[in-house]
Amino acid sequence: MTLLAAVDVGGTTVKAAVYEPGRWTKRAELRRPTARGADPAKAVADQVRTLIGQLQHAGPIAAAGVVVPGVVDEAAGVARFAANLGWRDAPVRELLAERLPMPVAFGHDVTAGGLAEHRFGAARGFADAAFVPVGTGIAAALLIGGRPHRAAGQAGELGHVDVGHGHRCGCGATGCLEVVASAGAIARRYTERSGRAVAGAREVLEADDDVAREVVEEAVTALATGLRLLVTLIAPEVVVLGGGLFEAGGLLERVDRRLAGSLVFQRRPVLRRAELGDEAGCLGAGLLAAELLERVVAP
Amino acid sequence: MTLLAAVDVGGTTVKAAVYEPGRWTKRAELRRPTARGADPAKAVADQVRTLIGQLQHAGPIAAAGVVVPGVVDEAAGVARFAANLGWRDAPVRELLAERLPMPVAFGHDVTAGGLAEHRFGAARGFADAAFVPVGTGIAAALLIGGRPHRAAGQAGELGHVDVGHGHRCGCGATGCLEVVASAGAIARRYTERSGRAVAGAREVLEADDDVAREVVEEAVTALATGLRLLVTLIAPEVVVLGGGLFEAGGLLERVDRRLAGSLVFQRRPVLRRAELGDEAGCLGAGLLAAELLERVVAP
Repeated sequence: MTLLAAVDVGGTTVKAAVYEPGRWTKRAELRRPTARGADPAKAVADQVRTLIGQLQHAGPIAAAGVVVPGVVDEAAGVARFAANLGWRDAPVRELLAERLPMPVAFGHDVTAGGLAEHRFGAARGFADAAFVPVGTGIAAALLIGGRPHRAAGQAGELGHVDVGHGHRCGCGATGCLEVVASAGAIARRYTERSGRAVAGAREVLEADDDVAREVVEEAVTALATGLRLLVTLIAPEVVVLGGGLFEAGGLLERVDRRLAGSLVFQRRPVLRRAELGDEAGCLGAGLLAAELLERVVAP
Repeated sequence: MTLLAAVDVGGTTVKAAVYEPGRWTKRAELRRPTARGADPAKAVADQVRTLIGQLQHAGPIAAAGVVVPGVVDEAAGVARFAANLGWRDAPVRELLAERLPMPVAFGHDVTAGGLAEHRFGAARGFADAAFVPVGTGIAAALLIGGRPHRAAGQAGELGHVDVGHGHRCGCGATGCLEVVASAGAIARRYTERSGRAVAGAREVLEADDDVAREVVEEAVTALATGLRLLVTLIAPEVVVLGGGLFEAGGLLERVDRRLAGSLVFQRRPVLRRAELGDEAGCLGAGLLAAELLERVVAP
């Protein structure tokens, strides 16, 4: 039986899994803290080799898919920039090909997550979709006519559209959506104003105090403004919102109502919670591996 | 020899032409004021029949392409909304099919113009492109991987992204790009502030007074802000700006510099003047006719 390895490299954790394609049952999985080293991309490539070696007890692996965050040029096989990993122009596909005995597909984590939500999750059946994971930052994977729109890794930077709040972003611009609406921003802004530390954005969403209400209100306004831009320019049929903060607190419903109230002639998209949780990236990496295998095996 | 008829229906003028596909030489053309009537879509369909009849002196016409403005659902063959024509949910493809003896392709004028600029003009050779005609309003045709992204006619509404100026738009929202940056807006705003009537935006661009400089400066700022959103979300490799106001006054260069100065990590697109002028829509209609003919004739 053909098995596929899938690896989702994150800023803090590397998730690896073995899937049986077709039914997409998971045969094995491992999680490890992301490796660090003097050459950070090589350190991660070494770690991926080790993880896939450890997963081979599940059976012979025919191909692997590895996805990474940041600005990823899939055509070139290069991770252009990933702040959390300290990568810049890292030739990741080459580093992996040198270390792995099977064909390797290389991709972008959010794009892969979007592919997985489109194939198995909340975007199933829609031709034009946006997958918007809200975590430390905010990104968007765009599916146009059922295919990812990549633009050499430059498209979908929803976290960095100017939504008008005027605060400075780490990217150097002002007004970026993720400065007030990412999960990280919600927690940080609450702590700054209240002096009270929180475990995360979920705690702010569930808190019953004025500061929490204010911070969440600002996030709702910013998210609706950002999604309105997405709708006006791209008009996705569905927007799939990912991240723990949409699993509670009625946040999705509030954003949906605010967005709907701001649309004039624009087509209102369906807003949905992501269905695959933090497995989306790994499943997407598996899909990339399956696609590669078809290309390699097909005449 | 196969000939194709192409008709570009505008708010004031209908342009019709006959092309020889392959070489795309123009064999005949006609322009008429757009027909009006109690049933405005039927009046235009009748006019298209008459025009194509008059063009048949050029030779036997194998297929026709007709493009119209507004929100056009090409898949359904329906013009959902066109303010300048008074159309709402007009079954244009059906109206045309009843009247014309040849197969008819039906499409959206800006999208068709984008196809033509991509095939013959300033976007030639780019996979991801935006064609942005700036006239009475502002729209964008998006080409993703060389194919138009339509979203049932809902995508590319660049004229209605909020660029933050706070003024009310005819669409009902505030801050829309076209309220300060369309050719119509530049002329209107100059006249409002100076009390001096102008023939059009070109005159304002060439005027050497403080009011003109102020109005143009606001348009430059708004255009750069709107294009920055487009770049951040879609990352086209090239943006082709259409409309007479880019043919003089260094406006394109000013927008280009302002946009470049506002980008942080985003990929700077090439900004180009459209090359096909007001023939883009007609040529695009011809391309749609050729595509239809291939589908009809091919087995």
